[in-house]
Order: sequence, then C-alpha cells, then structure tokens
Amino acid sequence: MHPVEFIREKRDGGAHRPEAIREWIRAVARDQVPDYQVAAWLMAVYLRGMTREETFALTDAMAHSGEVLDLSALGPTVDKHSSGGVGDKTSLVVAPILAAAGAVVAKMSGRGLAHTGGTIDKLESIPGFRAELSKEAFFRQAREVGLVIAAQSADLAPADGRLYALRDVTATVESEPLIASSIMSKKLAAGARAIALDVKVGKGAFLKTVEDARSLAELMVEIGERAGRRVAAVLSQMDQPLGRAVGNAIEVQEAIAALKGAGPEDLRELALALAEEGLELVGLPPARAREALESGAALEKFRAFVAAQGGDPGVVDAPERLALAPGVAEVRAGEDGLVAELDALKVGLAVLRLGGGRERKGEPVDPGVGVYLEKRIGDPVKQGEVLARIYHREKGLAEAEALIAEAYRIGEAAAPPPLILERVRAG
Amino acid sequence: MHPVEFIREKRDGGAHRPEAIREWIRAVARDQVPDYQVAAWLMAVYLRGMTREETFALTDAMAHSGEVLDLSALGPTVDKHSSGGVGDKTSLVVAPILAAAGAVVAKMSGRGLAHTGGTIDKLESIPGFRAELSKEAFFRQAREVGLVIAAQSADLAPADGRLYALRDVTATVESEPLIASSIMSKKLAAGARAIALDVKVGKGAFLKTVEDARSLAELMVEIGERAGRRVAAVLSQMDQPLGRAVGNAIEVQEAIAALKGAGPEDLRELALALAEEGLELVGLPPARAREALESGAALEKFRAFVAAQGGDPGVVDAPERLALAPGVAEVRAGEDGLVAELDALKVGLAVLRLGGGRERKGEPVDPGVGVYLEKRIGDPVKQGEVLARIYHREKGLAEAEALIAEAYRIGEAAAPPPLILERVRAG
Repeated sequence: MHPVEFIREKRDGGAHRPEAIREWIRAVARDQVPDYQVAAWLMAVYLRGMTREETFALTDAMAHSGEVLDLSALGPTVDKHSSGGVGDKTSLVVAPILAAAGAVVAKMSGRGLAHTGGTIDKLESIPGFRAELSKEAFFRQAREVGLVIAAQSADLAPADGRLYALRDVTATVESEPLIASSIMSKKLAAGARAIALDVKVGKGAFLKTVEDARSLAELMVEIGERAGRRVAAVLSQMDQPLGRAVGNAIEVQEAIAALKGAGPEDLRELALALAEEGLELVGLPPARAREALESGAALEKFRAFVAAQGGDPGVVDAPERLALAPGVAEVRAGEDGLVAELDALKVGLAVLRLGGGRERKGEPVDPGVGVYLEKRIGDPVKQGEVLARIYHREKGLAEAEALIAEAYRIGEAAAPPPLILERVRAG
Repeated sequence: MHPVEFIREKRDGGAHRPEAIREWIRAVARDQVPDYQVAAWLMAVYLRGMTREETFALTDAMAHSGEVLDLSALGPTVDKHSSGGVGDKTSLVVAPILAAAGAVVAKMSGRGLAHTGGTIDKLESIPGFRAELSKEAFFRQAREVGLVIAAQSADLAPADGRLYALRDVTATVESEPLIASSIMSKKLAAGARAIALDVKVGKGAFLKTVEDARSLAELMVEIGERAGRRVAAVLSQMDQPLGRAVGNAIEVQEAIAALKGAGPEDLRELALALAEEGLELVGLPPARAREALESGAALEKFRAFVAAQGGDPGVVDAPERLALAPGVAEVRAGEDGLVAELDALKVGLAVLRLGGGRERKGEPVDPGVGVYLEKRIGDPVKQGEVLARIYHREKGLAEAEALIAEAYRIGEAAAPPPLILERVRAG
C-alpha cells in the first residue's frame, strides 16, 4: 500500500489490515518512509484510535523490526517494566528478589530522559559497574548469577525507537495504542517469558486517572498474552515520588537500604508486589518474594550481580562509597501544618536542573546530585523545619531550590495516598 | 508558543489565537519548524477543523509570508482562479474579455501538475511566448495593454508552497480551511482588487458535491472580503472536461475559436459568466463582457497580449501555427447509444501519459500532444464512429488509448449536465 493511501485509511477512521501494518512498520524501520508521513500517521492514530487487532499487529511488527532475544534456554525468565516515575528505583529491588526466589532476570534497561531517571544511569553510579555487555557475557551472567541488567541495545525494536522520537516532538505521546505498543514491543523483543508491569497513576505520571491506567494495563496484558507471554500489572500511585531519594547514587543507596529491610516502606511494598506477580506468572510460589527479602538472600544476590558486572560490591556494606555531591542545601517549611502535596514532576525537574538527568539523548548525567525528601505527604511539619536536602555542585541550584519549594504544599490535613491501587491479570 | 504546544492545542480541538498562527506561519516560511511537526499539525487541522477566524488569520499570515504585490496604481484589477479542471482553458478567454471591457488583468499563473494543465504551459505553446517577466515589464504591459499573464514567482506566499507540498504527501489535501487559505493566500499576495473564482464540482474535480463546493466558495468569498478585496465565485460542473480540447497547443486553438465566437458553447458560457462577475466586482457593467466577445474586441486584446509577451500574433488568424503532434490515433465506439459518461480525470491522465503534463515539478511538457473529444455527454454515437482523436508522438499511446476508451460510457439516455450550477457573492 502506498504511504499516502495508508495515512488516508487511518485519517478516515478505518482499521488497517495486519499485513498493511507489517509492511508500514518494515518501511519505518528501514527509513523508507519520510518523517513527515510517519508524523501525519501518528496524529491520525492519536485522533482516530486503533482497534485491539491493529494494536496487536503494530506491537508484533515493531517487536520484529529488529533483533528478538531468545531467553528460553534460561528457564523461568521474568522482566519488569515501569511506565516511568520519579524516584523509581524499584527495579533495583525487584530484580534481586526475583533472582533470589528462583526466577531469572536477564534484563535490558534504558537510560533516563527528561525528568525520569533510568535504571542504567543509577547502576552506573556504582564505581566500576559496566552496563554495556556482549551477548555472550549477558547470557553467561544470567546462567551463573540469575541476574543481569544491561544497557538496551539499539537493535531491539528499532521501529519503536523511530516512532517514539517522533511522538515526542509531534504531541502524539498520550495515545493508548501507541503507548501500549511501544512498551510491549520492547518487552517482547527483550525475550522474557513473563513480564510484571508497573503502571504509574497520578500527578507525577502521564496517566492521571485510575481508569486510564487500568485500561492501558489491560491492553498491555492482552497484547503480551496474545504473543504467548505471561503478563500482569500493578497500578501504583505516583502523586509524590517513590521513596525519599531522587537522583542516581542516592537512589542506589535507598535501594540497598530496602534490600536490608530498611528505608521507606512504599518502596519495599511496591517491589514485593511486583516480585509476587512475576513469580506467580512463572509458576513459583509468590510467598518466596518476602522470604528472599527478609532472609537477606535478595541482598546477597544484589552483591553478586554488582560484582559480576565489575561494580564495587563494597557499596552494599558501605553505601557511602556511592559518593554524593559535596554541596548540601536545605529547603525549609514556611509554616506549620501537614504536607498536603509533594509534586513528583517538580522534584524530577529539580534533579534534572542539577545535572542528574538529561534533556537530550547522549548527554552525560551527574551521578552524585540529587534530592532527599525528609518530609512526605501526611507528615506534620513546623515552620523552619527541613523539608528536603539538595545535593548539588552549584549548577542549577537556585532553580532546583525554587522547584522543591513549589513542590511542597503545606495544608491542614492530608492522608498519605494508598500506594498500590489495583492489580491487573490476564482475564 | 512552542511548536509541540501549538500542535497539541489543535490536536485537542482548540482554536489558535491569530497571533499564534502568525508566529507559526512565520516559522514555517523560514524553515524554522521541521516537516514532521508541520505534518502532524496539518493532520490535526484536517481532523479537528478551523474556525472562520482561524482561517482568516491563516490566510492572512500565508499571504504575508512573502512578497505582496501592490496593483493599486493599475486601476480596476481583476484576477481569476479555477480550483482545477481538465481542459480548462477558461483563463485564456476570460482575461481578454475582461481587459477589452475596461478591467485590468495583471495575473500570475501556475504551471500544471498531475492531470490538470496550467495556463502558463498552454501559453508557452505559442511560438516565442515569454512567461518569465521582470516586475517592470509586468507593470508596463499591464498599463499599456491591460492584460499580462506571467509565471508565478516563488516569492508569492512561500509558506503556502511549503504547506501545499506537505499536504500532497500526507493525505491532508481535502480540508476546507486548508484549501481555502491556500487558494486565497496566493490571490491576496497577487494583489488584484477583485477576484472571480471558478469552483469546479463533479467527478473530474476534487469537490464531488454542490454542497461542498458552495461551502468552500462561501468561505473563500468571506476571506477575500475580510481582507478588503471583492470576491465572487461561480460553481461549474466538471463531470466531463470543459470544451473538446485537452492538451496545450490544442487548448489554445480552442480558446482562440471561442474568442471568435465559435468553438464549444460551454467554454464561452463559463468565460462570460466569470467575466461578468469580475466586471461587476469592480463596478463596470457586466453586459460589456458579451459586447467585448461579440464585437471582436476581446480577440484583438488577445492578439495584442500575445505580441507584447513576444509570442507570434499570427496564431490568431492561423491557429494551425500552434503545431500539434504528428501522430493521430482514433478511439471508436464499440456500440450504438448515447454518451452517458465522459470521465474528466481519465482524459486528463491520458494527456499526462502522452507527455502533455508533468508528474513532478520542473519536468518539461510536450506542447503538441493532446486529445480532441469528438463526442461528449448526451451525443448519440454509432458503433465504429470516432469518439476522440489522440495527437501523440508514440510515447504513452497505448495507455492513453485505453484511458480514453475507459473514459467513455455509452448508455441508453443521458442529458448533458448543466454547466453553471450556482453563483456565490458576498452576503
């Protein structure tokens, strides 16, 4: 089908045939369609939508637009994905729990962009840690340690890479079929048998309502199951950041604390929920998740994983080896009251301004800068009390201070929101 | 406003502020917005529409994106525009009638693309005719002859040029606000006080129904009047080609015949209707149009115009100096009956295949090839009788023969459709 005919079909509200979608995505991946035609089609999809059959075909075509990893020889592989949050270091806790409980985590992960951090950026704050692995090293470590996390190679779902970059600059990001196919195409190409999805809801997430999040989660579960994978999703609240630490090294410190049974409760709770879903999907007892955490087996798995990828395993016992930036600024409460709001987006932007994230692909990030939230929603505060500490190297400090101050709203009464809103499993 | 914000506003069904539209079109004209953002916006406009205020602002911004000619010193200037048809040589007849009747026609015209011919291509089939004129020569001839037709310079409404090229390849052509603003921005930039529009309706036009054509015509009239110009429109039927000649030299021959009061009646009727509208818009008596035609004054004006632009004025008395291609093929009727249909699009494509039009901008056209339609809708035919003659140089002949044969449908009864469907004037 000619590109203009294909665009016209969607423009007029028609449903593409699966074969036409495959042909289109093949052309997109090979740069045989110019950006402007892809952009016009994306807007037509945004405004006209896609049927479930079209979304399945689109996801499958994107998953097969590049390399598809075959992890079947590794046993009960489980992958985990988050739709993006601030302070979200959950993978660093979930993955060791899963591996210690008998599943295999052989995971490709991304670097951060804009106000959300990336797991690879966080791990690279560990001295010596290597995220770029050969395929041989990746599989060997998966077999020997049961846990490996490597930087995502560009060969996974390259068509999605092209669509994603264009969606970002054409106001076509917030489309359910485009979001679902983007996430799931990468997960299908990454090869795990089971996938535990963390779908964020709230002011700090791009999905603002539980209804939207549930609908997206159900679609992603259906896509995965249709492709022969086991998929489940947890809807988790992202009005405020997850945990208290936002940054790179500072988040690894907090993840290590969680693996020791300490640190903020919400992080442990979400990590356990996702690990339980993952274990159940591969037929292992979900109760093993809590056992792995409480016995210290997950912590030991994390230590072995860091060492296997060249990182300093000493950070487990001495998290201060994860060096924070030397400057510390404090943001204090202007009045007495209770923390009524703590805007995750503003906290994420503050860390971005400090240099802890990147505005554009390829930019380096500063591992040491970050924010530690002393007070969270529901906490009582007194005027002059410290709300948050900012770890900085001067760069962006004034802006970060203003953003953190704006992020807090002190009110009269507030209950901390429930963390886990729903679980979505295959029907 | 940031481009992504601007696209999002239209995506969500909002109305752009005039100032935002001006800023956007300025950036489009200066190539400061990439094609993919323009394409996404065009699709959003296609699907969400535009208010009349937005369409006025868009037209005005595009008209002012390049040079705006000031023809005010020339007196009662009248421009004419057709929304595109097959065999449409009306400008060659209207313009001399208007000039002979006391109006001034100082017109920029385009070259043809795809299955529709361009006035400039037709005029260039006259030996010696020059369409590329300096601005001085253009104004001098307008003052001395009252009639000049030059190839459109790229400086008129360059933003429209960019949008038009993108619409063509992103399935966003058939949008009323985009069509109206595209046509009217060029007309406003071209500077005439009055504009007579010929809006084609039917199988050979992109507007298929009278309702759509009327709506577009009303919008264009309103746009022009809001910009201080006088505008009227004629809705004319384009189920079959206009007149009998389709090609370049062969259409000039037919136009000359019409100026002599001969040739097909539909061509004279449409030319008179448009000339009457144009004269009325500048306050001249509409009856002068028919007087100019019947007295021979329009023919003499055409002769002076051709001579002034370096063309051989002898073609007026000896139209055979407009050389047709030497090969002549005949398409004959396969059965007895009445011509029930004569598909203008197929006839236009046949001439394109023969080399009489261009697929891409910048390609040369063959002035001598063309088609002469011996039979038109409503004409009785006998098996074996000639339906049409094809003037060719072998190239594309077989394809053209097949297209012409397919263009005719012989049936049992058919009335020739009315030519002029409606006139639309400022309310």
